[in-house]
Amino acid sequence: MSQHPGLFITLEGGEGAGKSTAAAGLAALLRAEGHEVLATREPGGTKGAEAIRALLLNTETPLHPLAQTMLHFAARADHVETVLRPALERGAIVVCDRFYDSTMAYQAYGQGVAVSAVESLIQLIGLRPDVSFFLRVPEDVAKARLAARAGATDRYESMGADFTARLMHGFAEIAAQEPERCAWVDSSAAPGAVVSELRRLIAERTGR
Amino acid sequence: MSQHPGLFITLEGGEGAGKSTAAAGLAALLRAEGHEVLATREPGGTKGAEAIRALLLNTETPLHPLAQTMLHFAARADHVETVLRPALERGAIVVCDRFYDSTMAYQAYGQGVAVSAVESLIQLIGLRPDVSFFLRVPEDVAKARLAARAGATDRYESMGADFTARLMHGFAEIAAQEPERCAWVDSSAAPGAVVSELRRLIAERTGR
Repeated sequence: MSQHPGLFITLEGGEGAGKSTAAAGLAALLRAEGHEVLATREPGGTKGAEAIRALLLNTETPLHPLAQTMLHFAARADHVETVLRPALERGAIVVCDRFYDSTMAYQAYGQGVAVSAVESLIQLIGLRPDVSFFLRVPEDVAKARLAARAGATDRYESMGADFTARLMHGFAEIAAQEPERCAWVDSSAAPGAVVSELRRLIAERTGR
Repeated sequence: MSQHPGLFITLEGGEGAGKSTAAAGLAALLRAEGHEVLATREPGGTKGAEAIRALLLNTETPLHPLAQTMLHFAARADHVETVLRPALERGAIVVCDRFYDSTMAYQAYGQGVAVSAVESLIQLIGLRPDVSFFLRVPEDVAKARLAARAGATDRYESMGADFTARLMHGFAEIAAQEPERCAWVDSSAAPGAVVSELRRLIAERTGR
């Protein structure tokens, strides 16, 4: 289905769902199999996108939800055009910690931006993941992981329980609409077991 | 035609066309007539949008043209939702130095982003100017004005003659497509004469 010889895998979920750990483990496993793997994250992945990320996560600068949405897509445009497309076109496997499903869940379902607005921006980006993993853990596990993190909370970590509920509802809606692309994964298991399950699902869904 | 009791006026043109001087003079004249006037500029006009402006004009951070386009619209979304709409809804006259026609001219015609992409973003913003003035001066006047400015040149001032030609072609295309909204104004005249001409055209076009 892809327009390129590569494989584009994204990891999604709420704060503390274990995306970064799972992404690092999956990238290491795929590299050990001999694949070229690009492990990256959003917002970020380029100098410009990291500068946008700093602006987005800074709670000192108020930003309207539609402006936040467009900033996420500005960072994404830089990342996609200068890093992701070239990697996929040379056949690499891209493992990306968050992509546009996060913007749909956080900004549309979480913050009330129109779903149709986020859909328009997804059209403008024009690159779809081949497989998207939606990681979930019981709420108390996520809370314990977040509490263990050093440093201040960012714009989205400090949103509260209502916001988290809307977010998880958003991910559920996206997964229900695109079951061929999206797979739920229980990430409360040991990291090695989560990575094995991701690898099994990639083979099942893409034959690779 | 407007969805609000206010009046939304934008000034457009290339670098050195005299937009800022004309905008300040027009705002002063309208205030002297007793109107509430909000004089503002893009990218900018809010704390968040000014932070985005700093990122956009910084030549040290490479940014793909589509990312620049989305950054301009992110700044615009914050400005429109938090400042422009509330002002127009209470009946103010907004005089804005650059708006979305600049993004169409610079990013689409100047930098090769798809016209349809900018049109999609304009739809997402959903606020149209009532009158847009396209200021033009002979090229040597613009150059002399730019040369007289203090400080380093920004991302767009340093683009060169080919870029300027594409830019002016872009403004010409926009003005030709929306003649009821857009008016060309020769801004090589004395500032007072330019402001009088803008005021005359506002009355002619809006009856106000």
